[in-house]
Amino acid sequence: MNIAKTSFPRIVIVGGGFAGISLAKKLSKQEVQVVLLDKNNYHTFQPLLYQVSTGGLEPDSIAYPIRKILKDFPNFQFRLAHVQEIDTIKNKLITNIGKLKFDYLVIASGSETNYFDNESIKANSMAMKSIPESLNLRSLILENFEDALLTTDLNERNALMNFVIVGAGPTGVELAGALAEIKKGILPKDYPDLDTRSVQINLIQSSDRILKEMSANASKKAEDFLEELGVNVWKNVRVTDYDGKLVTTNSDLTFETFTFIWAAGVKGATIKGLDSSEFINKGERILVNEFNQVKGLNNIFAVGDVACMENDQFPKGLPMMAQPAIQQGLQLGDNLLRLIEQKPMVPFDYKDKGAMATIGRNKAVVDLPKFKFQGIFAWYVWMFVHLFFLIGFRNRVVVFINWVYNYIRFDREARLIIRPYKKRN
Amino acid sequence: MNIAKTSFPRIVIVGGGFAGISLAKKLSKQEVQVVLLDKNNYHTFQPLLYQVSTGGLEPDSIAYPIRKILKDFPNFQFRLAHVQEIDTIKNKLITNIGKLKFDYLVIASGSETNYFDNESIKANSMAMKSIPESLNLRSLILENFEDALLTTDLNERNALMNFVIVGAGPTGVELAGALAEIKKGILPKDYPDLDTRSVQINLIQSSDRILKEMSANASKKAEDFLEELGVNVWKNVRVTDYDGKLVTTNSDLTFETFTFIWAAGVKGATIKGLDSSEFINKGERILVNEFNQVKGLNNIFAVGDVACMENDQFPKGLPMMAQPAIQQGLQLGDNLLRLIEQKPMVPFDYKDKGAMATIGRNKAVVDLPKFKFQGIFAWYVWMFVHLFFLIGFRNRVVVFINWVYNYIRFDREARLIIRPYKKRN
Repeated sequence: MNIAKTSFPRIVIVGGGFAGISLAKKLSKQEVQVVLLDKNNYHTFQPLLYQVSTGGLEPDSIAYPIRKILKDFPNFQFRLAHVQEIDTIKNKLITNIGKLKFDYLVIASGSETNYFDNESIKANSMAMKSIPESLNLRSLILENFEDALLTTDLNERNALMNFVIVGAGPTGVELAGALAEIKKGILPKDYPDLDTRSVQINLIQSSDRILKEMSANASKKAEDFLEELGVNVWKNVRVTDYDGKLVTTNSDLTFETFTFIWAAGVKGATIKGLDSSEFINKGERILVNEFNQVKGLNNIFAVGDVACMENDQFPKGLPMMAQPAIQQGLQLGDNLLRLIEQKPMVPFDYKDKGAMATIGRNKAVVDLPKFKFQGIFAWYVWMFVHLFFLIGFRNRVVVFINWVYNYIRFDREARLIIRPYKKRN
Repeated sequence: MNIAKTSFPRIVIVGGGFAGISLAKKLSKQEVQVVLLDKNNYHTFQPLLYQVSTGGLEPDSIAYPIRKILKDFPNFQFRLAHVQEIDTIKNKLITNIGKLKFDYLVIASGSETNYFDNESIKANSMAMKSIPESLNLRSLILENFEDALLTTDLNERNALMNFVIVGAGPTGVELAGALAEIKKGILPKDYPDLDTRSVQINLIQSSDRILKEMSANASKKAEDFLEELGVNVWKNVRVTDYDGKLVTTNSDLTFETFTFIWAAGVKGATIKGLDSSEFINKGERILVNEFNQVKGLNNIFAVGDVACMENDQFPKGLPMMAQPAIQQGLQLGDNLLRLIEQKPMVPFDYKDKGAMATIGRNKAVVDLPKFKFQGIFAWYVWMFVHLFFLIGFRNRVVVFINWVYNYIRFDREARLIIRPYKKRN
């Protein structure tokens, strides 16, 4: 790769998500050369992807150009690249745009959808881990309603108007809530010819409660909110297969749907060279010590979702959320500088700031370390926190305006099929 | 097609652009059944497509859901459909979703890029007639800069940083100006490793002035503005071919570029059944009389870009712009009601409201029927008029905020490659 050598040690960061960007900011004015690689030229604010899928936000409002983040940082380089392999012996990366030597390497490649080796689900389901995937889902939902108008086969029409969301983590819950509001507020006006009362929103969870990473109170209240909105919540049900129309489960329960959203699991986005069992756990996350150092390697680190750092509170690793990623990125910045100066590194200490999810207008659940609350105030807190962590002033203003507009008008105007998902005949 | 018959006469409108929507609004509360067909589920505000291509606006801000426009109109139906053929004898449309009988048919299908039968230009150039095309261009521009960083071949790098825009109508002029501002304000910060002084923006026009539909004064001033911005304006040059890298012209002049934008012509988007020489002119526009009636047919009409209505002032037909489309749509609404009531129709009388184009910040040219002016005041007028005609309150607010932000910050944050245009290896 065409990157000039400098006298500074070279730190290569793979991934411009929360962890990678936090780390980059920490290193911005230090005597190190930083090369940031990402397969996109933008940072994605993943917590709001479901609002892109449901027409509430424009995709460009939750993306931010990585080059703009780095533009005032001396000694920084960005390259649009897919990393294909890591050579941990020769300290070298192999990418689609060439090879790159590093002195220090930080894997911040995030997570990807986990289909648990079910090829049929992988081939037929919609995921929501990236902006293009979210836009595909937006298009599919709208196309299915257009198609529902065309068919006279009742079974077919119901399958077109039936939603099955697998996985009741924040993504599944937030999507189900948004769809329920669309069913109520938008569909009857947009499709006066369809009996939109038959629209079904099914949220399926394999365990005995939704939002299982949150408090029991939050789970209970979120489920109440969803039921108020008319979502069918199915607990203790595990989806076993989906063939493009029929959903089968571990019970007698089946569904017919053309809109099947898989939000049931994520795994670490590992890279060849660090993907053998010596480096990763069951969830394909890279095992790291308290300095985010990959086990057995001195100059290779992993942060964020892809890193599995076990501690007493989280024996299976820190949660795959924005906060651990941001905090690890910042801490590793300090530690890399210490390491270069041959000072001892400081162990990472996770400050749990809690978790939250929104279900619909005036409906959210918030677990802070000291307070847990639900309802309208939680909803304001949720919005404030999301605006705060969104990168970019313009993005914040545009998202805020969309939210105010959607709230006042009970509307979501970005119900646009800009790129059709299915090829229309 | 699955549309119930009513006792009202059925008017089918093909196309939800300016003409189709104006007509629909006029018919909204009348005793007619209206079926609107479009291949997109949204109305596109075409005059701002170039700002989507250049990262200044989000695509969703210049699109508006057609179903939302129609939602309060009784007796209206929308279908997402491609019209494939018109049977003018049996009064029937053939579409990808079935056949449809009509009592009255209005073709408002707009215009499409005219490559003048040059297959090589068609295959290798970028057009800017739709939102997906504009997004493709946005991606390509950004990808070419990323690629310019990777190559050590100077010739290749220059071709990646060279822009050739063919056609100096409003689209070409506005795009050239926007690219010049990006060259100056954004590229040096985003790509500190590239010598962005070598970026060339070439605007090629076959006639002896740019903006040739406007006044001589406007042409002259627009050219001055472009030159101030560093755009190379080539007049009296006709592009003869483009093979994906080399642009040849009718003179010795050649260019090497990987970003070749074809804005040199449009033609009517005719439909089989009305596309024979008996119905269309050289520009493939459907010939209509002063009532927008297709020649020789009583119940079939054409409005907007696809219609060629000749008059004394415009012997080759009214200009293919928003104003004639809007005015014809409104007038035809009245005339259709008159026709149904067996009253005489009123001839269309075009009110020329002038034309305008923006070149860059504080730089625009405006020709009103009574006043012609250029510069900063013209720029404000341009912005005001475009905000006014943009459909939707939310769209107006979001576009306005983006403009204010871009103006204050000399920035365009939507420089995002959401969907790559070229397949990256």
